Amino acid sequence: MKKMQVEKRRPIHVGEAICRVMRYADKGGVERVPIEESYNRVLANPLTATHPVPPFHKSPYDGYAIRACDTKGISRKYPRRFEVVATIGAGYLFNGVVERNQAVRIMTGAAIPTGCDAVVMLEKGKALQKAGKQFVELKHPVAADENISFKGEDAREGSVLVQEGQRINPGVTALLATFGYAQVPVVKKPVIGILSTGSELLDIGDEMEPGKIRNSNAAMLQAQIQRAGGEAVYFGQCPDDLEKSLKRVKQAFEQVDMLLTTGGVSVGDFDYLPVIYERMQADVLFNKIAMRPGSVTTAAVKDKKLLFGLSGNPSACYVGFELYVYPVIRAFLHSKTPYHQKACAYLGVSFPKPNPYDRFVRGSISIVEGALQATPVGLDKSNSVTSLSGADCLIMLPRGTVGYDRGARVTVILLENDSGTTWSGFKQVTSKYDGSERYG
Amino acid sequence: MKKMQVEKRRPIHVGEAICRVMRYADKGGVERVPIEESYNRVLANPLTATHPVPPFHKSPYDGYAIRACDTKGISRKYPRRFEVVATIGAGYLFNGVVERNQAVRIMTGAAIPTGCDAVVMLEKGKALQKAGKQFVELKHPVAADENISFKGEDAREGSVLVQEGQRINPGVTALLATFGYAQVPVVKKPVIGILSTGSELLDIGDEMEPGKIRNSNAAMLQAQIQRAGGEAVYFGQCPDDLEKSLKRVKQAFEQVDMLLTTGGVSVGDFDYLPVIYERMQADVLFNKIAMRPGSVTTAAVKDKKLLFGLSGNPSACYVGFELYVYPVIRAFLHSKTPYHQKACAYLGVSFPKPNPYDRFVRGSISIVEGALQATPVGLDKSNSVTSLSGADCLIMLPRGTVGYDRGARVTVILLENDSGTTWSGFKQVTSKYDGSERYG
Repeated sequence: MKKMQVEKRRPIHVGEAICRVMRYADKGGVERVPIEESYNRVLANPLTATHPVPPFHKSPYDGYAIRACDTKGISRKYPRRFEVVATIGAGYLFNGVVERNQAVRIMTGAAIPTGCDAVVMLEKGKALQKAGKQFVELKHPVAADENISFKGEDAREGSVLVQEGQRINPGVTALLATFGYAQVPVVKKPVIGILSTGSELLDIGDEMEPGKIRNSNAAMLQAQIQRAGGEAVYFGQCPDDLEKSLKRVKQAFEQVDMLLTTGGVSVGDFDYLPVIYERMQADVLFNKIAMRPGSVTTAAVKDKKLLFGLSGNPSACYVGFELYVYPVIRAFLHSKTPYHQKACAYLGVSFPKPNPYDRFVRGSISIVEGALQATPVGLDKSNSVTSLSGADCLIMLPRGTVGYDRGARVTVILLENDSGTTWSGFKQVTSKYDGSERYG
Repeated sequence: MKKMQVEKRRPIHVGEAICRVMRYADKGGVERVPIEESYNRVLANPLTATHPVPPFHKSPYDGYAIRACDTKGISRKYPRRFEVVATIGAGYLFNGVVERNQAVRIMTGAAIPTGCDAVVMLEKGKALQKAGKQFVELKHPVAADENISFKGEDAREGSVLVQEGQRINPGVTALLATFGYAQVPVVKKPVIGILSTGSELLDIGDEMEPGKIRNSNAAMLQAQIQRAGGEAVYFGQCPDDLEKSLKRVKQAFEQVDMLLTTGGVSVGDFDYLPVIYERMQADVLFNKIAMRPGSVTTAAVKDKKLLFGLSGNPSACYVGFELYVYPVIRAFLHSKTPYHQKACAYLGVSFPKPNPYDRFVRGSISIVEGALQATPVGLDKSNSVTSLSGADCLIMLPRGTVGYDRGARVTVILLENDSGTTWSGFKQVTSKYDGSERYG
């Protein structure tokens, strides 16, 4: 009687797995896009002030530009009249020199005329006319430099205002416009291929059939890639045949910066990916991780390019992407903080059962009186798909011998916050985990 | 001697101003987009489960489907052999009925064969061959229903999984794919026009000139509109002439769902917008708000369509958009929580000077030990442009007779979080503010 062997894999810890893929993280190239298409892209170069801001001394208000020394000694009882020798709007210059007891009526944003060193607000002066001439009567002295926006006070020429790798938000856009970037140098998006495996998968547009489900992972990953800042290319489904699948994987791999597959990475009879990696002569970085869900998440590398074998289970696929693919995408986008932002939060419910492995629960963050609270959403099963729609964080429950009580302080991985952090959030332990137990 | 009068405006409170524009907030129509273009769009209809998830009882693991009753009494000492009558991968069906002491080797995701009510994990069984037949030897009894993902356990048919008005995140995408939405009904983006005024403004691609600055507000607003979920259309700059400007405003207004102008709303000699509103016979909802920056922010309505007159100062323009235009856009996108999410935070610095009016300081949020801390970024001046690039929140400093100390609890408006809230964050007081003082 013959005994058949099930392949036994050695799981590694999450931190070690992240460390192994990040060794192959590559920085993307640069391209130029019109400023109006640059929102949410990533700056490829530091943004430096190419001129001072403001570029000249200017008036922050509508008012009268004068010489402060001329207001010395004036008061309600002894007001003084200034001759208004010109009126200048923003964008116009007064080409003369303002003399003693003269004023220039000036609009917000206009350059301070030569000779002037202060602005009196419009409503602080009484406008008068006499013999076809304009005057303004002032009743209070003003100090030199009053109501002037000084050249360079907002930014000095040459100062670095935004770092390379920063996402372009509306404020960065304002600076890009200020310094004349009609075309903005941004980091190219990594092109990330998706190839699905699984004979049970129908296309999204297909009618339901017994024993089959529609492919939700490919569309989900496309959205996850977009959220991370990458460009997704869907290569469809692998055929139900090893040789044909191998060819498809190879073809797709050539066209992308990295390739994701879903399903087929386990040790089951229909899991072709392990063989495909071997046939492609790709180095498998890991094929089992001491985590749940997503323990079968696999990564391999060929020609310095990464292949990720994500689980076919929706939640496991989702978590695998966020932990291992996301930081590689962010690093490609020149981020100095490629890992998801993390935060301390209070657990909204109890998890009484201890975990023998690190667990990542899809959760939702709320802010209660300035403190974060994290609550799981939906079913905590690796094949749950509904729980993902409400998730904006992953609640980290480190392995241990006890459970977690409601109100316990836990670390959460923030999925909708792209500020990022330099620290993966896991010790890069290389100790071996004795994964005798099976988990999904 | 003739005295010239400066127009005096009556400021209203922020809450009242929000209330006045929200009366004209309109809900947008519906359009269909391919699922791969639906990320970050807004669901126009509730998403209902059109079939149970999973759609059939299925196996969450690779293993053996059996009848639990057949394992009664077995143990390490008294193991039992089951004949493996078939092997089914996910997507395939076992068409027979599993009989006593029979098993079906089953892969993750495959439908549970008729007759079976439990799955034994692959590694818990010893596979054997005898006389060309396959057997599995089991040493432990299993309970009925063990290791089965039940039909409908993740979602019952007919249950509402995602509400109308929710932004499509990767988890929502997974659900849309599951239920066959190759085309997704989303809310049309509001088309929002931008028209700049100001003779000092150069185009982004122009060389610098004395007394002039490049137009940063238009590009910034385009990005703000994109962040809020709208579609921006830039109509360029208004000419330096009232009649021509009026024509341009009218033309632009006809093509959009709402129109934003920048600059020209003050009481200066070159501020055409008040006259333009009058000539268009638009109702001015307000033209002065007891806030800083952005006190001159104006809103008007014509044919139930909104015109916003934002300040020409970058920070004032930015704040005016986020307070008054943002919630109108979110309401258009069917959001039930159209106002920016707010949170309590600790002030990172002191503001010793009291404010006679509500103040909105551009700030940056950090999470320190699970609590939010808000720190101002850059210059707190309405004409500052550099401070905006680092801002992800507005720190609200309500008017009062004292300043704010470092560590004080304040409310912050979160700009990069689109979960939203139902409450504008301001009392809708209609009391009159005696705005004798001028502010920018």
